[in-house]
Amino acid sequence: MTTLKNCRPMGGPATDLHIAGGRFAAEAAEGGEVIDCGGRILIPGLVEAHTHLDKSLLGMAWYRNEVGPRLIDKITNEREVKVSLGLDPQVQSERQAILSVSKGTTQIRSHVDVDTHHGLAGVEGVMATREKLSGLVDIEIVAFPQSSMMPRPGTVEMMDEALSLGADLVGGIDPCGIERDPKGHLDAVFALAEKHGKPIDIHLHEQDALGGFSMEEIIARTLAHGMQGKVTISHAFCLGMTNRAYAAELHARLAEAGIHIITTAPSAVPVPAVKELKAAGILTGSGSDGIRDTWGPFGNTDMLERAMFISQRNNLRRDDEVEMALDICTYGGAAIMETQGYGLNVGDRADCVLVEGEALAEAVAMRAPRKLVLKGGAVVARDGICVREAP
Amino acid sequence: MTTLKNCRPMGGPATDLHIAGGRFAAEAAEGGEVIDCGGRILIPGLVEAHTHLDKSLLGMAWYRNEVGPRLIDKITNEREVKVSLGLDPQVQSERQAILSVSKGTTQIRSHVDVDTHHGLAGVEGVMATREKLSGLVDIEIVAFPQSSMMPRPGTVEMMDEALSLGADLVGGIDPCGIERDPKGHLDAVFALAEKHGKPIDIHLHEQDALGGFSMEEIIARTLAHGMQGKVTISHAFCLGMTNRAYAAELHARLAEAGIHIITTAPSAVPVPAVKELKAAGILTGSGSDGIRDTWGPFGNTDMLERAMFISQRNNLRRDDEVEMALDICTYGGAAIMETQGYGLNVGDRADCVLVEGEALAEAVAMRAPRKLVLKGGAVVARDGICVREAP
Repeated sequence: MTTLKNCRPMGGPATDLHIAGGRFAAEAAEGGEVIDCGGRILIPGLVEAHTHLDKSLLGMAWYRNEVGPRLIDKITNEREVKVSLGLDPQVQSERQAILSVSKGTTQIRSHVDVDTHHGLAGVEGVMATREKLSGLVDIEIVAFPQSSMMPRPGTVEMMDEALSLGADLVGGIDPCGIERDPKGHLDAVFALAEKHGKPIDIHLHEQDALGGFSMEEIIARTLAHGMQGKVTISHAFCLGMTNRAYAAELHARLAEAGIHIITTAPSAVPVPAVKELKAAGILTGSGSDGIRDTWGPFGNTDMLERAMFISQRNNLRRDDEVEMALDICTYGGAAIMETQGYGLNVGDRADCVLVEGEALAEAVAMRAPRKLVLKGGAVVARDGICVREAP
Repeated sequence: MTTLKNCRPMGGPATDLHIAGGRFAAEAAEGGEVIDCGGRILIPGLVEAHTHLDKSLLGMAWYRNEVGPRLIDKITNEREVKVSLGLDPQVQSERQAILSVSKGTTQIRSHVDVDTHHGLAGVEGVMATREKLSGLVDIEIVAFPQSSMMPRPGTVEMMDEALSLGADLVGGIDPCGIERDPKGHLDAVFALAEKHGKPIDIHLHEQDALGGFSMEEIIARTLAHGMQGKVTISHAFCLGMTNRAYAAELHARLAEAGIHIITTAPSAVPVPAVKELKAAGILTGSGSDGIRDTWGPFGNTDMLERAMFISQRNNLRRDDEVEMALDICTYGGAAIMETQGYGLNVGDRADCVLVEGEALAEAVAMRAPRKLVLKGGAVVARDGICVREAP
């Protein structure tokens, strides 16, 4: 029973919002707490829809990166280094998730490595963190075959175990570029999804025509398995291809198959054009990807900053355009995660963030300080600091 | 007479550095102040080599951006809006420069608009700020024909006046794309440079073959006027062209003509590949470009963050690569500005920044807090706050 007094939902006129039973309510309850919001902007909780909680190096000694340039160099190096560094997926995921909460994120979809080298240690660690941080942040786990499934016998069985254990989604990775067996890989991914009745989120780094080919194969299986609305393609760099006619055809077919796109809007590779995705009716979310890991030193979990990256990468400068980028980092990700009661309307779950700034675009451009973060109506972070201390 | 005790120059082993007469000295003076650096990293002052001090909207009411998509839309809108908003170039440049100092920047090259609508108001305003902030930060002024010279009679004469008044460099802008008269524009720019004996810094947004053509014309005039080492091309988006053979040819010819490149590493357009520039022996610097202006809401003057953008845009992940990006934002820009005594060696001017972090790449990735900023040995900012308050 709380009243958020003098807040500005989505940067609009100042008003008072009431919370009861963890949800926004039409009227104030007797004797409830009143929080003076000082005219600050209120937005729904930020949505981290693509990250890797199990392998951040946050809080550990600085890792000097001397890794080779290819994707496979990074994958192989990481599999070894996780052992030599003694990385603990539970501790690391807790550190990253708490940092996320401090920045206003209220729900996370995390890919978690499943391979024959580390077994289910990653999934078990992140599941323990999910339990430990219950009430602070919601965590969804994708069983992710980072090291590939087809060339490494035993991985499919391990993926199956991870899904039985509690992973929420089936992950996948470059069917051609990494797996070298698009039919084998995608058949296995969709079979696991069908067996466990769980949705899919596939990493697709493949560019141009190669990525287009893999995407066509994903679309075909999504339709064949009746999985419309249950499949996400992360990265989807191929949609940034120069051949815009083929990209437009792919957009139309993705929309028809109800496939979602998650873009982290990196600046060094082609990326999906978010305005075109929106025009095609494709749900779009975003995420931080890896945070300070063996792949690179960057990342701070800030999804307001991610909205800035999306804006800059897509040359969005007008206020309405920057607001669209923020929408991807809030409503877009929440819709992809099928979050019930997401938003600032009466009846919605009171997951929200109070931020400084005159306008939404200013909050994004300045990556404005988070004054307060609420999860289910309870304060989980104040002035950029989470109420739970990181290990 | 100061000793920086227990600092780590460039992230190396801890040591004590002595300062006397505003410069690094071999020995400590009697009775000097001792600053405990707590093992933090010391780097030379960050160099902001491309910005627009005269037109930031920092500290003003939020400007809702509804501007059209073309370059010319932004130029025309800005010329009008500067009047309707009552923008004061002196106040705005002071605000931005003080923010820069707080983030560890010790020298700035600023393009300043010169046009027949606003006359020399911009140059006069930034010159007043330069005077006012003398000792805090060095400011170099480029007389910049933002609204074009050739299609707007009277602009060349105004540029001439700006250079007589005290502007340090001759600016230029897309000879084809904006000026629509490459011969006329570049002849005028080089004639002004010759008359005033001043260097040149030209904005070149033109992409692909068009930018290549303009670049060839700049190279030809640089050689003809014997201006090797005195010409900078800012942005140079054309060097990000798909035709890498032609780009390599341009790199070789730029190096031969001693032309420097300044890249802000934006993510929505092609950009010069900084590793290739380095391999070709081309001096490279960087800058923030516009800070929260009518062109867009982004920018915070942080040149450590700019090093991160350069890294991300060029896919630099290894520690040695990220260090190269930082080098562009320090030594690269300083060399282009022909700064004497720049660095951390004995005899160098004590312009430096103390930053948190274990390693240089960490300082860049985390955009680490600036504990202390020194200019000529004097403390000009502490814990991210400039000793001078912004107006």
